[in-house]
Amino acid sequence: MVPDPDGEPDTSRGAGPAWDPATGPGRRSGGTTLADIAHQAGVSVSTVSKVLHDRSDVASRTRARVQRLLEQHGYLARSRPAATALAPGGLLDFVIKELDGPWAVELIRGAEEALHAVGMGMVVSAARERGGPTAGRWLDSLATRRTRGAILVVPELDAHEHAELRRLGVPYALIAPVEEPPPGVPWVGATNWPGGLAATRHLVRLGHRGIAVIGGPRDRLSSRARVDGFRSALEEAGLPFDPRLVRWGDFRTEPAYRHALDLLRLPERPTAIFAGSDQQALGTYRAAAALGLRVPHDVSVVGFDDLPFAEWVTPPLTTVRTPLPEMAAVAARMVLQLLGGERPETTRVEVAGELVVRGSTAPPPRP
Amino acid sequence: MVPDPDGEPDTSRGAGPAWDPATGPGRRSGGTTLADIAHQAGVSVSTVSKVLHDRSDVASRTRARVQRLLEQHGYLARSRPAATALAPGGLLDFVIKELDGPWAVELIRGAEEALHAVGMGMVVSAARERGGPTAGRWLDSLATRRTRGAILVVPELDAHEHAELRRLGVPYALIAPVEEPPPGVPWVGATNWPGGLAATRHLVRLGHRGIAVIGGPRDRLSSRARVDGFRSALEEAGLPFDPRLVRWGDFRTEPAYRHALDLLRLPERPTAIFAGSDQQALGTYRAAAALGLRVPHDVSVVGFDDLPFAEWVTPPLTTVRTPLPEMAAVAARMVLQLLGGERPETTRVEVAGELVVRGSTAPPPRP
Repeated sequence: MVPDPDGEPDTSRGAGPAWDPATGPGRRSGGTTLADIAHQAGVSVSTVSKVLHDRSDVASRTRARVQRLLEQHGYLARSRPAATALAPGGLLDFVIKELDGPWAVELIRGAEEALHAVGMGMVVSAARERGGPTAGRWLDSLATRRTRGAILVVPELDAHEHAELRRLGVPYALIAPVEEPPPGVPWVGATNWPGGLAATRHLVRLGHRGIAVIGGPRDRLSSRARVDGFRSALEEAGLPFDPRLVRWGDFRTEPAYRHALDLLRLPERPTAIFAGSDQQALGTYRAAAALGLRVPHDVSVVGFDDLPFAEWVTPPLTTVRTPLPEMAAVAARMVLQLLGGERPETTRVEVAGELVVRGSTAPPPRP
Repeated sequence: MVPDPDGEPDTSRGAGPAWDPATGPGRRSGGTTLADIAHQAGVSVSTVSKVLHDRSDVASRTRARVQRLLEQHGYLARSRPAATALAPGGLLDFVIKELDGPWAVELIRGAEEALHAVGMGMVVSAARERGGPTAGRWLDSLATRRTRGAILVVPELDAHEHAELRRLGVPYALIAPVEEPPPGVPWVGATNWPGGLAATRHLVRLGHRGIAVIGGPRDRLSSRARVDGFRSALEEAGLPFDPRLVRWGDFRTEPAYRHALDLLRLPERPTAIFAGSDQQALGTYRAAAALGLRVPHDVSVVGFDDLPFAEWVTPPLTTVRTPLPEMAAVAARMVLQLLGGERPETTRVEVAGELVVRGSTAPPPRP
């Protein structure tokens, strides 16, 4: 199945006020550390850090003094980026919420290859859970190292963090944020709605009529878009949208297993299940096995992501490929554009995936 | 199925009949495993692991004793390393052959956490295939950026590259090299031989007699050690080592599928298969399904690595955990020690894994 062009996002519409090159990332001179600045200003490092992060509990005269030093030493934005910002050997930051799960490496690879192509390297770090002892430290690290730019896979970046990044003058792009970021902040997502549509159309065309969906978290835009794509495919086929066949979970295997058990025990058993992630698809495989049902003979399963294991499992999983490396490469190139003083044509890009048909889908069993 | 304590690798006593701790295949001169440290401290391997990971539920005197041993053997950084080399915000390099496969992110996470703990960051890059247009460029990048130290997951580092690193004066440690590196170059591996032993003992204790093995590449020390562990477990049980039941492949799914098909079609079908990797175990699952055999009822399967998908597949895979994050953390600490002007007590560390018993193994079918 070819990706449906109608499903593609409208990236042509005008961008919001993009990152302003006039107040863009600062040039930093020499090797001055925050401790040096604290020493020169006659204050503690923690006070310098507060000023850097625009916290309120610093006297205004102190703040002004520290701010001036931070600007002098390039910690705070003041001038246009130098052309040398893109010198070979330069580094960008890649920050991801958790270095966990098979998708992390797909994103790292895509960004690393895009930067490698222009002779740059990439510092990888974990943002870590909010509330943990080291939460938020990644922003300090970026400031301390005077990063030139950052690719962020931190889905729930809050207004405070956006403000800090702007204050540091660091050009950045987001990958797959939960909510649409503030205007002008470039971001890259996957096309979720067309994926849900393509997965469900595939099942409809195979002859399925009772199709269930196990979505990701209900409060995530990406999950909701996938389920809406599912609903649209049913509508265009004249099939009813039965709320009993719609479950919301997270993206993990175990909860999906329980949802699938429940669905496959319904008196009118669905003949196909569209899962919100490949992990959830494996939970569905397990539920089918537990009930003595065979995939795809008794029940068809479609996943979402196309992680490497999707082709290794039995049966190999039909799934919607999320183009993770491409998404990361696009984000990296957006940051490079900003660094070079260019303004990306659009600050919002959705990268199209495609349905990969393997062995987990087949026509429904004869009644 | 409950985990079988008997199935755990008996590395704590260090003395299976086939494995002499002084000369055994599980280690060589200078190599100290966590099991050795547990033995010396008079505690369990799990307690040592807790101390290594700074968990709270260890009595303080025990903790101090274990910590001292871990420091002696280079598992923990002993003292504050030289201030200049390790200033917060400093960076080390992490170079991996390919940013691909689920194990890459496990290694990246382990190294990143170890460096984060001392306030340092990590530049991640791919070494890329030899002979490609950008092959070898990673060494140039390290030189250009004047890296302070490097953690290398480049299995086939050649003499020229070792010489180049020495010339640059860059402290470095290797993870899982194919061949033993030149003397003095610190490296970290997994304990492969005990893993093969534990996997096979587990199958023997379940009552299996016809046990096949699908190994990794024949020229890799790690594969050979796993198969030798397999052979030793058969020998100690008085079972014959039947060369027809031994296949060598690579670590991938597809070739393992063909080997497994072949093995499961033998007139005297093996009742269990020990696969050299989790991916190979999935190839074995597929072969069993293709022949209408059920795992574990008709054939038991054990993998190697315990990648995240091992617990998501059906049935969940019994496998030998390769402690990838710990291996990377140890390598990172070795480089930090070298940077701090210290010499690690040992330049060779093997980190012990353990058998994780899940649903893919059971007693053999009744004849």
